[in-house]
Amino acid sequence: MAEGAERRRPGRRPGLTDTRNEIIAAARKVFADKGFDKATIRGIAREAGVDPALVHHYFSTKEGIFVAALSLPADPSKVLPLILQGPREEVGERLVRFLLTLTADPAAREPVLALVRSATTNEQVVAMTREFLARAILDTVVETLGIPPIRMEAAFAQMFGVIMLRYVLRVEPIASVDVEELVELLAPTIQRYLGEP
Amino acid sequence: MAEGAERRRPGRRPGLTDTRNEIIAAARKVFADKGFDKATIRGIAREAGVDPALVHHYFSTKEGIFVAALSLPADPSKVLPLILQGPREEVGERLVRFLLTLTADPAAREPVLALVRSATTNEQVVAMTREFLARAILDTVVETLGIPPIRMEAAFAQMFGVIMLRYVLRVEPIASVDVEELVELLAPTIQRYLGEP
Repeated sequence: MAEGAERRRPGRRPGLTDTRNEIIAAARKVFADKGFDKATIRGIAREAGVDPALVHHYFSTKEGIFVAALSLPADPSKVLPLILQGPREEVGERLVRFLLTLTADPAAREPVLALVRSATTNEQVVAMTREFLARAILDTVVETLGIPPIRMEAAFAQMFGVIMLRYVLRVEPIASVDVEELVELLAPTIQRYLGEP
Repeated sequence: MAEGAERRRPGRRPGLTDTRNEIIAAARKVFADKGFDKATIRGIAREAGVDPALVHHYFSTKEGIFVAALSLPADPSKVLPLILQGPREEVGERLVRFLLTLTADPAAREPVLALVRSATTNEQVVAMTREFLARAILDTVVETLGIPPIRMEAAFAQMFGVIMLRYVLRVEPIASVDVEELVELLAPTIQRYLGEP
């Protein structure tokens, strides 16, 4: 990362890439210190020594900054509404296939696993992750589908556990089985949680 | 742990508690070095400088040593057969209630979470955990119930994810909801995986 190397002295005008990286470095610090809920675009801009409008320009939303700061493969607050659209009776299947296809790519999966690793060992990261999860994932699904939050959490737990067994513990056969077999096995579970209330 | 302090020079005869602790310290080292599958009671006895019969006397099985070495709250190879007995149509409910009641006690839960924490960050611990999981949990259930292994893994993933959300990430409402509400929500999922093939 060489974050230290990116830090410039106040007064020197950075290039565009420098500025973006500087905002990301500032965001990492602010999210770790304050968590997701209490972090603000204004506070991140202040930490980076730039105008808040510039932060908006690069990242649009606080979710967008968080996704960039942690190199997450997708912004759930943008992707989820697309997956939740379409026939309600197939929402389980769409969600399972999307998550397993996304995490099949190591480059997409690694930042997520890195976040899980640090969340299991660091209380600051736990708090930040919990708040982002609640705002960007759970609330979006709960509001869009009109289901009790606990049902979305059960669905999330199922998929989180599968991804941990498949890619971290790497237990067979779940580590090697193909995506479509897992879709067949798991979609009815997710559908039961997320289907009509 | 003060494992170093427990190590004695060859020749000095230890008390009974010393011997048991010495075997446990040796087992931790052997499991970490060799994993669960390749570790043997004989190898652990050699590492501890005691007779294999003594290891058998204290712990009966390799699973028993592993459980003691990691301070796990129960030996799955002993507990699972009891839970799997009884009406097949209620196996999901029995398993969910057992796991959530067991992990409700922080003293029982902490060693399990400690194992998860080190498994997410340490490849040796991953291998050891994967092998123990496969032998002492997955194989037992698969053989007793006669189901495809992937179904047991899906059930394990569901419960693992729930315990992580409830006790590590502590997302609400799943962190605070009572056990019976979770049994009602989750038992049909586990029943679907573990019920009649």
